[in-house]
Order: sequence, then C-alpha cells, then structure tokens
Amino acid sequence: MDISNYFPIWEQLTPSEQETLSSSCSSRSISKGTMLHSGSGDCIGLLVIRTGRLRAFLSSEDGREVTLYRLFPRDICLFSASCIMQNIQFDIFIEAEQDTDLWVIPSGIYKKLMEESAVLANYTNQIMASRFSEVMWLVEQIMWKSMDRRLASFLLEESSIEGSPVLKITHERIASHLGTAREVVTRMLRYFQGEGYVRLSRGTIEITDTGALQKLDI
Amino acid sequence: MDISNYFPIWEQLTPSEQETLSSSCSSRSISKGTMLHSGSGDCIGLLVIRTGRLRAFLSSEDGREVTLYRLFPRDICLFSASCIMQNIQFDIFIEAEQDTDLWVIPSGIYKKLMEESAVLANYTNQIMASRFSEVMWLVEQIMWKSMDRRLASFLLEESSIEGSPVLKITHERIASHLGTAREVVTRMLRYFQGEGYVRLSRGTIEITDTGALQKLDI
Repeated sequence: MDISNYFPIWEQLTPSEQETLSSSCSSRSISKGTMLHSGSGDCIGLLVIRTGRLRAFLSSEDGREVTLYRLFPRDICLFSASCIMQNIQFDIFIEAEQDTDLWVIPSGIYKKLMEESAVLANYTNQIMASRFSEVMWLVEQIMWKSMDRRLASFLLEESSIEGSPVLKITHERIASHLGTAREVVTRMLRYFQGEGYVRLSRGTIEITDTGALQKLDI
Repeated sequence: MDISNYFPIWEQLTPSEQETLSSSCSSRSISKGTMLHSGSGDCIGLLVIRTGRLRAFLSSEDGREVTLYRLFPRDICLFSASCIMQNIQFDIFIEAEQDTDLWVIPSGIYKKLMEESAVLANYTNQIMASRFSEVMWLVEQIMWKSMDRRLASFLLEESSIEGSPVLKITHERIASHLGTAREVVTRMLRYFQGEGYVRLSRGTIEITDTGALQKLDI
C-alpha cells in the first residue's frame, strides 16, 4: 500500500499535490519503546501509521505520565509536526508502544501544501478534531470517574486492543496510562482479584469476569 | 467596528468571501447567565465576541461542572458551531459570564466558505489549536496540581480578569470552575484566610497577599 491509501481525501488533491506528498514521504521502522516526539523540542513531521501502535502522553516534571490516546494503523499523528501550527502550545510525548512501520511527511512540506489546499487544511482540521475529542473524553474520565471505574475501562480496552483476556502489562505501566501511582493500581487490582474480576500472576493480568468490569465501566 | 476587524486574515480572503461573511453575520446581545450552547444538540454558529465574556465548560450527568476556558473580546467561539466538524464528538456547554455582544456567523455558511478557502480553513485550524492548548493546560492542572494550588491559580486569574483584588463570587461558583465540591473550596478558602492570603466576607473574597498565592501557583 502506498501513501495514497492513507489519505481518504487523496482523490480531491491536485496531481501536483499528490506528487509532492508521494515523493516527500519516507518509510521508517521504529522499535517498540522508541520516543518519537518529546515535548515541543522536535518536529519530525506527520506520521502515518502502517503497522504497530503509538502512544501519546503527557509527562510531569517529576516523571509521572498519563496517556492521552493511542494511534493505530491508518491513523495520522499530527502533533509530531506540532510546529506547523503556531497555536499548539503544549508539550506532548509520543512513543512506539509496539514495533511500528510508518510514513514520515516532513513538517515544512506538509505545512506548505496545507496553506494552499483547502482540502488538506480541512482534512487536517478533522484529524485535530478527533484528537481533541479523545482528550475531552479523558478530561471527563478524570473529572467524573473514580479510579476503580477508570481501571476497569482501561483493562477492557487493553484486552480489546490485544485481542486477548490475558494482558502482559506491569502495574507500573498501567499507572502511567492512568496518571496515578503504582500502589493505587496494585491495591485496586488486588481488590478486583478478591471480587473474582481478574487473576493476577507475575507480569500478567487475566480478565476472568468481563461482565463485572463492564458493569463497573458504565 | 465591523466584522472585518475580528478576522486577522480578512485581507487574505477574496472580495466575494468577505462579502459573504459580512452579509451573513448578525449582531446579538446576550444577557449574563444565558446558555448559548448545550452539548451537541444545537449549532447556532460561530460566535465572534465584541464585548463581554463567555465560559466553556463540561457538565457531568449529576450536574457537576468544570471550566475548560473563557472567551474574551476578539475571541471566536468555534464549538458553538461544532456541527461543521464531523469529528467533534464531545458535549461542551457555553454560557455568557457577563452581558455579551457578539456577531453570529451561521454554521452552514461558514462551513461552505471554509471548504473552499484554504486561508479560512487554516485560520479555523489555529482557533482550534488554541482551544486545544487551553484544554491540555487544564489536563495538566488536574493531573499534577493539588487543589490548593489550582485554587490559588484561579483566584489570581480571576483577579486579573476583573482588574480588582476583591472578587464577587460564591464558593459554589468557584467549585463549578474547578470541578470540585463546594465544601472543598470553602475549607481551602478558610485555610487561605487563616494564612492571611485572603479575607472572606459575605459574597466576596479579597486577595490580601498576592505574593503568597503566586508562590503557591508556581
């Protein structure tokens, strides 16, 4: 699949715009754990995900983290090119959660195309609106939902992403997703185990009562 | 001042686009407390603020609120026209915090202009990026800052907006801004009073030690 398949608005671009996008993008393979964007310091370009998974998160000065959203195949990562929009004034971090293959479109080239193409500018708008919606969902979660419900929600989502009820993930890592302390996660997972919702063993969490977690997640 | 003064990119629009914007926008005066947008149910149009102040907030099912950001003269409210962007999937509320004069640009007309004008689409992008930055700031506040620091920050901001150290605001209202319970605000304000940061009286809060609040806000 070439880059045209990743832009639903491809046919609405002019041949010259298509040519510029095609010829400027480069393919990259990223290993799991690689940090692709750290705060506002870099601006590598738009990332178009072919396989794998990226995680966008915030990080506090003392190293705590909270996951904002994940990016999956066919998603486009805009904030790795945050320099193309002068009003983006926040520091976001983006890392590969799995080995990931992606296309990189250089920021400068994309910016220039977007300034001239209403189609591309509106498409970029839609991408930002999607990310905005995900962050607003997070705000609602943080504000109105207790941590046990957020943990239930996270375990179900993780299980759905991985396609398995057995999750290979540390308590520390879950804490970084949810923006809380490891101890809080451990305590709550033990409570979940006591209730029969999950079974814990070294390095894995097995969901044993999906229905109970779903009930908590409502 | 006419509508052209509120769009920094006005001169880059075509005469026909300028004419469409000018002739379609209507002037409205809104009383303090009026709800301009409730969730995703309405789509009155882009609001261009001439005088006054709007507040954008989230509301939980059980009626709790948290302020996302405020809009001041010259700001443009995009989410009152959220239907123009299909990927906006969150329910935001917008109310007049003061008596407010504004221009309304109908959603359908703006959408059509934006689809054809790269300049307007990119400008809309910048507006969304600004709001996104404000919401990300809020996420960082909620995640990493304790409530006493958020309250100090709120009091200082409020004092700066009002241009006075004496704030006429109820504890209930502050709680709605910060997304917490009134009791929490009252308890913390009493603590602030005990430390000499503020003086409380019926319906008002007077900041008596700006420096101490600023220290807390860092």
